[in-house]
Amino acid sequence: MGLYIGLLHYPVYNKNQQTITSAITNFDLHDLSRLAKTYGVKRFFVITPLEDQRRFAERIIQHWTLGHGASYNPHRKEALELVAICASLKESMACIEEAEGEVPLLIATDAAEYKNRPISYTRAGEILVSGRTAILLFGTAWGIDRAVLAQSDYVLEPIRGIGIYNHLSVRTAAAVILDRLLGKYQ
Amino acid sequence: MGLYIGLLHYPVYNKNQQTITSAITNFDLHDLSRLAKTYGVKRFFVITPLEDQRRFAERIIQHWTLGHGASYNPHRKEALELVAICASLKESMACIEEAEGEVPLLIATDAAEYKNRPISYTRAGEILVSGRTAILLFGTAWGIDRAVLAQSDYVLEPIRGIGIYNHLSVRTAAAVILDRLLGKYQ
Repeated sequence: MGLYIGLLHYPVYNKNQQTITSAITNFDLHDLSRLAKTYGVKRFFVITPLEDQRRFAERIIQHWTLGHGASYNPHRKEALELVAICASLKESMACIEEAEGEVPLLIATDAAEYKNRPISYTRAGEILVSGRTAILLFGTAWGIDRAVLAQSDYVLEPIRGIGIYNHLSVRTAAAVILDRLLGKYQ
Repeated sequence: MGLYIGLLHYPVYNKNQQTITSAITNFDLHDLSRLAKTYGVKRFFVITPLEDQRRFAERIIQHWTLGHGASYNPHRKEALELVAICASLKESMACIEEAEGEVPLLIATDAAEYKNRPISYTRAGEILVSGRTAILLFGTAWGIDRAVLAQSDYVLEPIRGIGIYNHLSVRTAAAVILDRLLGKYQ
């Protein structure tokens, strides 16, 4: 039981709604791993089919977990130790199944409304708090390919602010989502 | 009336609790301006006393609001148009006072507990919704200098996740805070 997160670099859309593989962004690794550590996420999967991109991510993570960075900033070490690099969503789902002994619930996120299997923050939060193993999937670039949304168990409601603007970075969107699902405050 | 945000680069702490001027991070400008646009913030002040750093920030902003970037990605244009670059917190407070005809309430944020004038998210949210002009101040590096916290009207409660880890990036912390104060969802 437990919550996992994934950051998908393929298949995602570019600005012309074509399916692409996006490049890994260094800041995403740092910001999302620190979020994962803050909200008790068990593992953060960075997902890309490109081998050189996986090597690039591994180099960054090794710098902060084993190299000079580990002693320079132990808080980053603690966070980046949660990262696992995978070639596909399927591979990360299999890793979770192996560790947990159950198939994780796949909860995808998107900036746009998705008509099939939408889920509210309250309901998704209840499921997570109940201890059901789940992976919360975030898309890079212009969002997760619809083929992946279609195979998800749920698609979380989009973040609506004040007005119609909804173009948050994946870093800040993930922060809002994790806090809505798990944050406690007065 | 209205909400403003500020990102302070001086005076802030380095990891050894010495007061420093931090460097501007390109990703902060993008992520916080998109958050500002999403949550109806009137203006986002980027505050640094270093003239070359202010010029650097202006160059980035001009690229996305006037240059090639404006047509390449109009959503970034809309967001970065909210940015104003100031030499000091005092200067940004004066800008707000001139625009609004009242001195803004200064609400600072910090990752640590601050004993004087703490304020809960619920109470701060009520103040903002009531229409009181306010500036929400975020610190870079290892946080806002205590001298600034001491002159603030309020210091917002720190973000607590699950467990004791509280080392979010300023980008993701700002996302959580704005959503706690202004977000609406089911």
